[in-house]
Amino acid sequence: MKNAIVLFSGGLDSSTCLAIAKSLGYRPHALSFRYGQRHEVELEAARRVAEHLGAAAHLILDVPLKTIGGSALTAAIDVPKDRDLASLADEIPVTYVPARNTVFLALALAWAEVVPAQDIFIGVNAMDYSGYPDCRPEFVAAFENMANLAIKEAVEGRLKITIHAPLMHWDKARIIREGLKLGVDYGLTHSCYDPGEGGRACGRCDSCLLRKKGFAQAGVADPTRYKSSE
Amino acid sequence: MKNAIVLFSGGLDSSTCLAIAKSLGYRPHALSFRYGQRHEVELEAARRVAEHLGAAAHLILDVPLKTIGGSALTAAIDVPKDRDLASLADEIPVTYVPARNTVFLALALAWAEVVPAQDIFIGVNAMDYSGYPDCRPEFVAAFENMANLAIKEAVEGRLKITIHAPLMHWDKARIIREGLKLGVDYGLTHSCYDPGEGGRACGRCDSCLLRKKGFAQAGVADPTRYKSSE
Repeated sequence: MKNAIVLFSGGLDSSTCLAIAKSLGYRPHALSFRYGQRHEVELEAARRVAEHLGAAAHLILDVPLKTIGGSALTAAIDVPKDRDLASLADEIPVTYVPARNTVFLALALAWAEVVPAQDIFIGVNAMDYSGYPDCRPEFVAAFENMANLAIKEAVEGRLKITIHAPLMHWDKARIIREGLKLGVDYGLTHSCYDPGEGGRACGRCDSCLLRKKGFAQAGVADPTRYKSSE
Repeated sequence: MKNAIVLFSGGLDSSTCLAIAKSLGYRPHALSFRYGQRHEVELEAARRVAEHLGAAAHLILDVPLKTIGGSALTAAIDVPKDRDLASLADEIPVTYVPARNTVFLALALAWAEVVPAQDIFIGVNAMDYSGYPDCRPEFVAAFENMANLAIKEAVEGRLKITIHAPLMHWDKARIIREGLKLGVDYGLTHSCYDPGEGGRACGRCDSCLLRKKGFAQAGVADPTRYKSSE
């Protein structure tokens, strides 16, 4: 059994990604971040899903992205609602968090060297996504190249870091279908950027809209608990 | 005046680097990290030097590298003493911190996007150094390439990130001479990995040995406050 680090928010994509890593024979080490996100409730989902899917370890790290600022996800800026899904990838929305995946992958790389693990999984997706630049294949490839020049275990030839992004070219419906085959209980996951009481989903932010569309297109009942007004 | 982010430990190299950024006409935004380092006293030096050199801003971020572990600088592992300087670059020592410069540069990139600043300075050096892989020019170049694919402001053409490493090919003596020309007061800086009471330097760790040699070769009185036993 080989170890892998899985970036893990407790959302639909990263939960599927963890299940995929496991199905490929890896011992998944789930890595989550408390970064001042308004939807910090996702970390409760992350704990539930890590246990449900049998992660070998689950580490939650504090990262000061809220101190740095510049995002609707960490500041008192309204999260956009009811946007047209067809236009999502045309502009990068205010929910973009500066250098978030760079920071998350950098910490994953540090943990990978210590575990050790030479495989890092990230659930980014360039199909049904919000247009974030750090979800694109060219970013992932450039990070992988840098990573192998950065750490002792790689430079001395004991680890060859690979960044796996198995969801990159799948639409949301396919992600859901593959996850269901692997036994993911999506009722345990959390995707909403602007949750209400008890972590109920708003149903109207980009993340909720993409998720809803995925269940609809997959022809699968949506297990998400929405706010009662929805 | 252009903004720059300067990775800034309060040590000899990064203090010189900040002075260089200023001399080039940048408004230096100093960025320091509290990461569980045993020499956390360096942050007091960082505050003093940032004020002394007139940094436009100074941000100290908490980063969970101690939680991840794997280094003598963040764990109860002895810091090596009295090593032969000639052999320092031959092997990567236990003071190496997994992916440290990757994590620091990732957070610098996030701050750069918010400030905004398109220039990031890092005081790494591949001459008189401890053999850390993330101090080499190929690492810096790969990070810069990745950075321009990672952030919104770069991808949308408003920023072109450049990572400056002006000390890369200088020996310690030259770094000191250039810093003195720019008015750096090295008596305010801190380099020791294993300081004693009042932040006094041990005089025997790799960082102290490299610093001592630099002052000797530059023919400059060493202003460092060493432990009395030295």
